[in-house]
Amino acid sequence: MKAILVLFVLINAYSINRVIALEPSLSVASKKPNNIIMVIGDGMGPAYTTAFRYFNDDPNTIEVEETVFDRHLIGLSSTSPATVSGYVTDSAAGATALASGIKTYNGAIGVDLSKQPVNTVLAFAKRAGKKTGVVVTSHVNHATPASFLTHNEDRNNYNSIADSFFDNNTSATPQFDLLFGGGWKYFLRPDRNLVEDFQKAGFQYVDAYKQLQRLKIGTPALGLFADVGLPWALDDSEPFRLSMMTQAAIEQLENESGFFMLIEASQIDWAGHANDIAAAMGEMRDLAKTLEYLEVYVQKHPDTLVVVTADHSTGGLTLGANGKYEWQPEILRTIRHTPAYIAKSINRSELSIEQTNDLLGFALTTEEFAALLEIEKTFQRDPSDSEEFEDAEQSVKRESAYYSYLNAIINKKTNTGWTTGAHTAIDVPVLAFGAQHELFIGHNDNTDIAKKVFTLIEK
Amino acid sequence: MKAILVLFVLINAYSINRVIALEPSLSVASKKPNNIIMVIGDGMGPAYTTAFRYFNDDPNTIEVEETVFDRHLIGLSSTSPATVSGYVTDSAAGATALASGIKTYNGAIGVDLSKQPVNTVLAFAKRAGKKTGVVVTSHVNHATPASFLTHNEDRNNYNSIADSFFDNNTSATPQFDLLFGGGWKYFLRPDRNLVEDFQKAGFQYVDAYKQLQRLKIGTPALGLFADVGLPWALDDSEPFRLSMMTQAAIEQLENESGFFMLIEASQIDWAGHANDIAAAMGEMRDLAKTLEYLEVYVQKHPDTLVVVTADHSTGGLTLGANGKYEWQPEILRTIRHTPAYIAKSINRSELSIEQTNDLLGFALTTEEFAALLEIEKTFQRDPSDSEEFEDAEQSVKRESAYYSYLNAIINKKTNTGWTTGAHTAIDVPVLAFGAQHELFIGHNDNTDIAKKVFTLIEK
Repeated sequence: MKAILVLFVLINAYSINRVIALEPSLSVASKKPNNIIMVIGDGMGPAYTTAFRYFNDDPNTIEVEETVFDRHLIGLSSTSPATVSGYVTDSAAGATALASGIKTYNGAIGVDLSKQPVNTVLAFAKRAGKKTGVVVTSHVNHATPASFLTHNEDRNNYNSIADSFFDNNTSATPQFDLLFGGGWKYFLRPDRNLVEDFQKAGFQYVDAYKQLQRLKIGTPALGLFADVGLPWALDDSEPFRLSMMTQAAIEQLENESGFFMLIEASQIDWAGHANDIAAAMGEMRDLAKTLEYLEVYVQKHPDTLVVVTADHSTGGLTLGANGKYEWQPEILRTIRHTPAYIAKSINRSELSIEQTNDLLGFALTTEEFAALLEIEKTFQRDPSDSEEFEDAEQSVKRESAYYSYLNAIINKKTNTGWTTGAHTAIDVPVLAFGAQHELFIGHNDNTDIAKKVFTLIEK
Repeated sequence: MKAILVLFVLINAYSINRVIALEPSLSVASKKPNNIIMVIGDGMGPAYTTAFRYFNDDPNTIEVEETVFDRHLIGLSSTSPATVSGYVTDSAAGATALASGIKTYNGAIGVDLSKQPVNTVLAFAKRAGKKTGVVVTSHVNHATPASFLTHNEDRNNYNSIADSFFDNNTSATPQFDLLFGGGWKYFLRPDRNLVEDFQKAGFQYVDAYKQLQRLKIGTPALGLFADVGLPWALDDSEPFRLSMMTQAAIEQLENESGFFMLIEASQIDWAGHANDIAAAMGEMRDLAKTLEYLEVYVQKHPDTLVVVTADHSTGGLTLGANGKYEWQPEILRTIRHTPAYIAKSINRSELSIEQTNDLLGFALTTEEFAALLEIEKTFQRDPSDSEEFEDAEQSVKRESAYYSYLNAIINKKTNTGWTTGAHTAIDVPVLAFGAQHELFIGHNDNTDIAKKVFTLIEK
């Protein structure tokens, strides 16, 4: 059923400048956007966007500063997969819903319950004459990007998913013009060099962030910047790597017929699985920077729609725990690296409290440092091993124990709660700005989001 | 600053009937509503509205049924109190923000950081010539209703808060025309009989649900139906008591000058504090029924605005836990009473598995029943006590152990997670329908909600 609803709204009120950013859409509200950018914060349930606000709060002001997430929030999305998989989705079924508008089983990449390929907004946009691109911080063949780009009955078939990116792409209608993220492991394999395949097919290839600026406009581009996922935002040479890749990608994709782009802040989910609030806030900060860039882009290019959501929430994150009316993000604001990175660093060298405090950006108590030394003793280096050739298993155990302990300290000091290493069923935020963003106001099912995007691409 | 924004939105899409219920507002969008109904689900974070959808889902259909919460969701609200109290609010500061538009300290009832009384939307509506009423399932002098009705530096001053309801109300400008909830303990005290005071001042008084139908229209009304809070919805003689009280209240309040009403589903919060998902879903069902009634009311009376939100989220509820991709509300759909009620019942009589299963509405395993029998042994009745005069302390301990165990079984079978007995900082849902509901689209701070309501009351 097609319907045209006309809504004439007079808003007469003071101090409602926070309600919603309407400006970019006013002039083009009735036109379909030329450019559509879908942004997925993998695992980014409402606790993450809330946490980011308080993490981002300037303690020197009375007000809590509004974030880019606040400015554009316009609803929530339910995330449940097909009935056969219960109410809690994985990233594959979640991304397939967002890409195709259908409910499927957990693990499915762009296929329905009968394992048949389904149409995706990205493929549809390509057929409609738009350029298409995908920018992620995971490996590019991970569940979310894969569900927009290809079809596979099992998300774990990483090699065949990567292969299909090339095999589909060199057919009569190539699916994408740009692909940025991690994934050397899957693209530079002993059995197949996909990078070479892409280069032979006319793609330019870059493998370092600094090469992004050298890309030629108008030539399809493949950029792989890590073996699997990119380093954590907190640990990367470029903490705003998603924002940086996004800017480079848009320059590549801009053209008169418009473009469709998928951007994924993939590792919010990974931080959630690890119950690691420090890593999570680092990823959220990179995503926020990306959205702030897109805000400016949409102001300059009002024929662009940006829709932001998550596929699900990860970790059962809660901002408060243990009976205390507190969530204290203070130490997260100064932490210099993820606890995983710090654990690795202290595992590689003699442990000193000064060095540890310096990496953490806050001071451990004497008791906390003593507990770290205890870990060093429990998993001590075999004296017969040289430093270079230490028994790997013992080293991994010790590093893992450091990580668990440091992460527990951070969760305790911030009073952060987690209930699971998996996903939960809670509805996730929906943000939209730019042309036709009003379509997404209210409660959406995840499949509704794809259905609405399809209507905006349809010629 | 006053501003008039004109938003002309053309929505052209198929299958967007779920986006938002616009119809009631179309004809009166530019007019201020005559009636304003604020509804607070105390403690109702986004995990509760999500949980209710899956709890309410008909397993015999492929689709997950949309709920009344889904139909009217239009944003989220942040809930942080004044800086002095950190980022996690209590119900007093939360309700004061929603009632007055100011941030205050945790524990404050309608007073600012200097403990000075602040204007409330309820008092403002009364001065603007509207009738005002409050309907809650807690005692009527509990933090949320109190913050709309009075001013006190400490929410725990229950007696002086109750006293002020009368003392303020008989002044030149009485504040309210109707008050329904629990509270005999505070209104019928040895030192003061507030019920008699109210009756002498012209209020009609009822103390049983069935008397609600006998109330005379046009006479102020006090209805107290329990010593403190009402029984849990699941255990009450009238599981839809909030809905029933609301209907009776609206009949009382309707008049040409309009009315302001606060409705609070108070005990969602209490279920959250107890980490009791069965009780929580019972309370949510009563609130859903209330909102469904208000939907019909607004269709008939389009000059009415309904705004629904929460003061905060309670318990760190997550829909999924322990590493499993599952949330399984099935047993909650058939449970006949709260685990607290069942614990009390089995504590009062010989324990049989049939009786327990019958009360639960699902079958315990042999191991689970054996664990209950173990509790009976651990806290066994002193043989020298008669049944009537059993040592109270022992009985309370046994009942509490039954409750904890039954509740743990329910959390385990549903795979529900909790992280705290207190509140968390996560943003909470905002729903609105009826006249001027568009004002609340997007992200609101809790103070914004009161500020917007003030503009709608202003003459």
